[in-house]
Amino acid sequence: MLTLIVMMIKPFLNENFLLENNIAERLFHEYARDLPIIDYHCHLPPQEIAADHQFANLTQIWLQGDHYKWRAMRTLGVNEQFITGTADDYTKFEHWAATVPYTLRNPLFHWTHLELQRYFGITDLLKPDSAQRIYQTASEKLQTPEYSVQNLLRKMRVEVVCTTDDPTDSLEYHQQLTGLDIKIRPAFRPDKAILIEQDSFPGYLEKLGAVTGIEINSFANLWEALRQRADFFHQQGCRLSDHGLEQVRAVPFTDEQANAVLQKHLRGLALTAEEIAVYHSAMLFHLGQLYHEKGWVQQFHLGALRNNNTRMMQTLGPDTGFDSIGDFDQASSLARFLNRLDTQNTLAKTILYNLNPRDNEVMATMIGNFNDGSSKGKMQFGSAWWFLDQLDGMEKQLNALSNMGLLSCFIGMLTDSRSFMSFPRHEYFRRLLCNLFGREVHQGMLPNDPAWLGKIVQDICYFNARDYFSF
Amino acid sequence: MLTLIVMMIKPFLNENFLLENNIAERLFHEYARDLPIIDYHCHLPPQEIAADHQFANLTQIWLQGDHYKWRAMRTLGVNEQFITGTADDYTKFEHWAATVPYTLRNPLFHWTHLELQRYFGITDLLKPDSAQRIYQTASEKLQTPEYSVQNLLRKMRVEVVCTTDDPTDSLEYHQQLTGLDIKIRPAFRPDKAILIEQDSFPGYLEKLGAVTGIEINSFANLWEALRQRADFFHQQGCRLSDHGLEQVRAVPFTDEQANAVLQKHLRGLALTAEEIAVYHSAMLFHLGQLYHEKGWVQQFHLGALRNNNTRMMQTLGPDTGFDSIGDFDQASSLARFLNRLDTQNTLAKTILYNLNPRDNEVMATMIGNFNDGSSKGKMQFGSAWWFLDQLDGMEKQLNALSNMGLLSCFIGMLTDSRSFMSFPRHEYFRRLLCNLFGREVHQGMLPNDPAWLGKIVQDICYFNARDYFSF
Amino acid sequence: MLTLIVMMIKPFLNENFLLENNIAERLFHEYARDLPIIDYHCHLPPQEIAADHQFANLTQIWLQGDHYKWRAMRTLGVNEQFITGTADDYTKFEHWAATVPYTLRNPLFHWTHLELQRYFGITDLLKPDSAQRIYQTASEKLQTPEYSVQNLLRKMRVEVVCTTDDPTDSLEYHQQLTGLDIKIRPAFRPDKAILIEQDSFPGYLEKLGAVTGIEINSFANLWEALRQRADFFHQQGCRLSDHGLEQVRAVPFTDEQANAVLQKHLRGLALTAEEIAVYHSAMLFHLGQLYHEKGWVQQFHLGALRNNNTRMMQTLGPDTGFDSIGDFDQASSLARFLNRLDTQNTLAKTILYNLNPRDNEVMATMIGNFNDGSSKGKMQFGSAWWFLDQLDGMEKQLNALSNMGLLSCFIGMLTDSRSFMSFPRHEYFRRLLCNLFGREVHQGMLPNDPAWLGKIVQDICYFNARDYFSF
Repeated sequence: MLTLIVMMIKPFLNENFLLENNIAERLFHEYARDLPIIDYHCHLPPQEIAADHQFANLTQIWLQGDHYKWRAMRTLGVNEQFITGTADDYTKFEHWAATVPYTLRNPLFHWTHLELQRYFGITDLLKPDSAQRIYQTASEKLQTPEYSVQNLLRKMRVEVVCTTDDPTDSLEYHQQLTGLDIKIRPAFRPDKAILIEQDSFPGYLEKLGAVTGIEINSFANLWEALRQRADFFHQQGCRLSDHGLEQVRAVPFTDEQANAVLQKHLRGLALTAEEIAVYHSAMLFHLGQLYHEKGWVQQFHLGALRNNNTRMMQTLGPDTGFDSIGDFDQASSLARFLNRLDTQNTLAKTILYNLNPRDNEVMATMIGNFNDGSSKGKMQFGSAWWFLDQLDGMEKQLNALSNMGLLSCFIGMLTDSRSFMSFPRHEYFRRLLCNLFGREVHQGMLPNDPAWLGKIVQDICYFNARDYFSF
Repeated sequence: MLTLIVMMIKPFLNENFLLENNIAERLFHEYARDLPIIDYHCHLPPQEIAADHQFANLTQIWLQGDHYKWRAMRTLGVNEQFITGTADDYTKFEHWAATVPYTLRNPLFHWTHLELQRYFGITDLLKPDSAQRIYQTASEKLQTPEYSVQNLLRKMRVEVVCTTDDPTDSLEYHQQLTGLDIKIRPAFRPDKAILIEQDSFPGYLEKLGAVTGIEINSFANLWEALRQRADFFHQQGCRLSDHGLEQVRAVPFTDEQANAVLQKHLRGLALTAEEIAVYHSAMLFHLGQLYHEKGWVQQFHLGALRNNNTRMMQTLGPDTGFDSIGDFDQASSLARFLNRLDTQNTLAKTILYNLNPRDNEVMATMIGNFNDGSSKGKMQFGSAWWFLDQLDGMEKQLNALSNMGLLSCFIGMLTDSRSFMSFPRHEYFRRLLCNLFGREVHQGMLPNDPAWLGKIVQDICYFNARDYFSF
Repeated sequence: MLTLIVMMIKPFLNENFLLENNIAERLFHEYARDLPIIDYHCHLPPQEIAADHQFANLTQIWLQGDHYKWRAMRTLGVNEQFITGTADDYTKFEHWAATVPYTLRNPLFHWTHLELQRYFGITDLLKPDSAQRIYQTASEKLQTPEYSVQNLLRKMRVEVVCTTDDPTDSLEYHQQLTGLDIKIRPAFRPDKAILIEQDSFPGYLEKLGAVTGIEINSFANLWEALRQRADFFHQQGCRLSDHGLEQVRAVPFTDEQANAVLQKHLRGLALTAEEIAVYHSAMLFHLGQLYHEKGWVQQFHLGALRNNNTRMMQTLGPDTGFDSIGDFDQASSLARFLNRLDTQNTLAKTILYNLNPRDNEVMATMIGNFNDGSSKGKMQFGSAWWFLDQLDGMEKQLNALSNMGLLSCFIGMLTDSRSFMSFPRHEYFRRLLCNLFGREVHQGMLPNDPAWLGKIVQDICYFNARDYFSF
């Protein structure tokens, strides 16, 4: 196969965006593009899905709650008034529009224009000149039924959405959504029951007690309460859990010790670092056993350094753009944790996500220690997360996984997003993936067998996830 | 736009060095190339600038004091006699010339030939064959007035040079240089006042006492002395500080505790690791407040493991090529340090440099925690430093910053050099930067808008730094 | 030099595999390809070499003992019965053949097909369709004299093989191999004498005592025994040692302290972490001095997290595919260790290998601290190891070494393999290396001087190792 190459400047974000040769193009357009989406980890609000919410304008769907955009605006020197403050929706949009050209090489630049294209058919670049026109066009469309949030999901061929929910959540909106053609499933995220060192812990136990009708005054009845909630989540279709932790602790513990730590805490006494570690270790181990028993998948998001700016935390609360990447040790304790569960034959399917890319290889090889032939890709190195959710970060995750494990068994992409307009990130991932294959075929590093490569691409983009989870 | 590509082997180091397509070429030649240089961090000796020193030959300007070159020669097996020893200047040059061909793929290879071209118009490769001719041509030129050190700076369009100075420095040469057309500014580097664990600390306090006329026997009068010196530095045009530390310590402290540690040390007693951490934490916090008060920028160079070879340290002293990259934890304590200052509204503009590239993402996201909209790029992830000052290292720093922050707000390059011939590193950086943009335009990953990209390039190469500092 | 480029899809694994332009091709085919191999670190069984063993079929030479392949099969969901279990050889091969297409982008995919080509001339891809034919063809060849293990080594132009041996080993097979045209040399790996914290330590001391006829009841006579074994290894041609450790410990110690720790252990008492560190530090320091005295090279393989799966460890034992990459601190203690030896003028030639790629730059700069001009490349940053032995990993190691040291002084590749069919990895390395040079010549980043580049390539592929070791 011989092609005379004419090198031209590729138009920005055209139909072959990120696809650098015709093998890559073919893999994407013929195999990957039209597959449905299983978004097995995100932060969409179930209430808005249940209400089939309609956003009034582009600011409301795009700028409210998107701390990625906020952070960029602050970096450029935009005053908080125009970000999370009292300015009106259009003024906020203007400031965002003025920021966008300065986000070049940041994923926001690609995401912004990809989302304008895919949801609204707008191919103009967003900048001060085009701000008003784009705002008006998009906002008008948002007010039509076609742009209700359920329709936005259908437009992107979303089959499954897994939200992220606290064990105390009533799941009332999930219940309302039972009959929907899109599966909206809860995910069990018990961080607040684990993080005994946080000020909010006592209040959380009270809340958990109130929801379950169990007075929580021991490790045993804390577990009774959590188990009750897990049963309830399972009834509502929950099939996976999630944890956001700096590290997975796995020191030696007994339930008696864990109970003693909890009792000490309930008496209002300060805990030592060792006691906190004992409590964490006990909780994570028992949770791991619970997930295995229920046939769930467990997820661990490791290594974020959160809430670093006290001044802004006091004003805006958590998840507002003041988190960053930590440099915690991960390998040894994570191995001990997984091994303890494995030794008892109670290690559930597991997805490990790291926030510091320096840990990619630790995770890519850790999963191999516990892939025991029991199922395809039982242990997963999760897709590039948060700050790493961009071309470089995704390519590094895919390469580490390829080089140290089997890419072919990967369950692929998720949005991890709070926004209804983030689903083109799946397209972004698929393009990148197809391009990696296409590039290596061209270089003679992979056989030119599009049917086989196309099958692998489809597995990674959809079928592996479909078979991995039990939705 | 369509170009029929003819692929040819590009001549080494020609006018389009590092520029892989015509967009990149255009950005460099039309936008970046001729901008002035603000070298806001280097180690040039002010005395030689004041004297408008003239170097006698190429060895003296190039090989005296350049531990990068020394290290390469030692690796190849060259005896110390021909490096820092008693061999004559030309013999030393011959050994360097014989080493250069073996430095291929090391930045020294590019720097060497770039410097020969830019300063002397020499396009030959340096090797044993060409050594004598090159030595003679360059040395003759060096002896002409055009090659005085001030003229060397003018030749490179240097507008501002910030040297690196101890608080006890008299700044006499900076005073002599007040009227120069190039701004030569001191930078305040109080490492020796912080590193209480070093043997040199007691002597340093005495020196600081002598310079200020303050007998230093408490934390309070140590601070009185440092403040006096900072005032003096400010009068001499100093607008930034610098710190070279393994880590930024930020344990809980009170001034009373810090004073107690100092008192204990003054009584000749050994300090514990905890006491040293208290002292460091107190010093850094108060210094941070001082810098904010003065409107200075603070710099932190973190993570070097220094003076690893005792035998050579005893012979040659520090900064002679026996330092390397450490693997210290950085994130948590750095976040605490910055947050403490921010909480008091006393966080100065800050530049963070890491020596271990595994910390790139920690730094690139750390700055986002404290970019609060108060000014463009208040918090900076500094340009690739020391061992990272090469194509790979710079590209990784630029990519981490782009992906996790705003490249457009970056204040760009500095030489960090002890040599008057290192200024082509700014050109090297500019070429690399233009190439990153050019490459992504060609790939359809950036819009083909040279005017906009050219503006951003110019901001990064010059205007951002001009606006960031108050020189 | 001008070439009209016609871009075509390069056939998979053709004669110019990994070589992306004609400079790279020329460097490989004219300079690198036909050089002999010095495999200075591997795990080949000397017994099989001495017996000039003949493998019965492809499963026996390829799948027995190759935990890389096992791990891939487990990840895909293959039952252990078909991996290390009771299934017959051909059934196991069928499962491997079915796995191979799923290993795309993993080094196994390239290795598998490279080995089929180089040893058997088989250019078909291995998959279920081709399994039977390939198995039969290869197995028949394996049964001919041309495929005895000695002839397999000759076929690859192997000049030297260094096995990896415990100090208690009798080296009987090495003695039998003295007259062979291929040098088969032992390497001294005393891990079991260092790892006092392992359950196997007491038994190991007994074994060492039995082999040497020395009753080991003190640090002094432990050393007498080890020295006796080192003398014996030296007589058998051993010229290098090796260590597999999480970290190099270098706390303060005296021999008296080390002896006290050993005595305590011999009395059956549990050791503290500090005591273990003292013992490790003492052992490593004295071993380092011993190696220097004997003119040996010392190797350190650092950072593996081993035996993470207790369940499989109990079934299959160590080195069966349940190890991964650790995230241990390395820099400070390694620097202290090397400096102690250097201070006493007893630092042997040293090769440092890291398993976590985040430590590449620590290692690449660490060696520079102790390269003192005494010989070319005295301190080496070893070739990408284990999980890193793939294109990405090798390229990163080569780039870190190039950017922070002198690639030209590198002693190059080794197989580190248990398999007689792993020698094409040297070819793989050579292709990659030639391609790095070829790419940079094309880009104008290196001068187009194939004779010089060819010399450097040859040094790295063969001559540097030949001159570095004293085989």
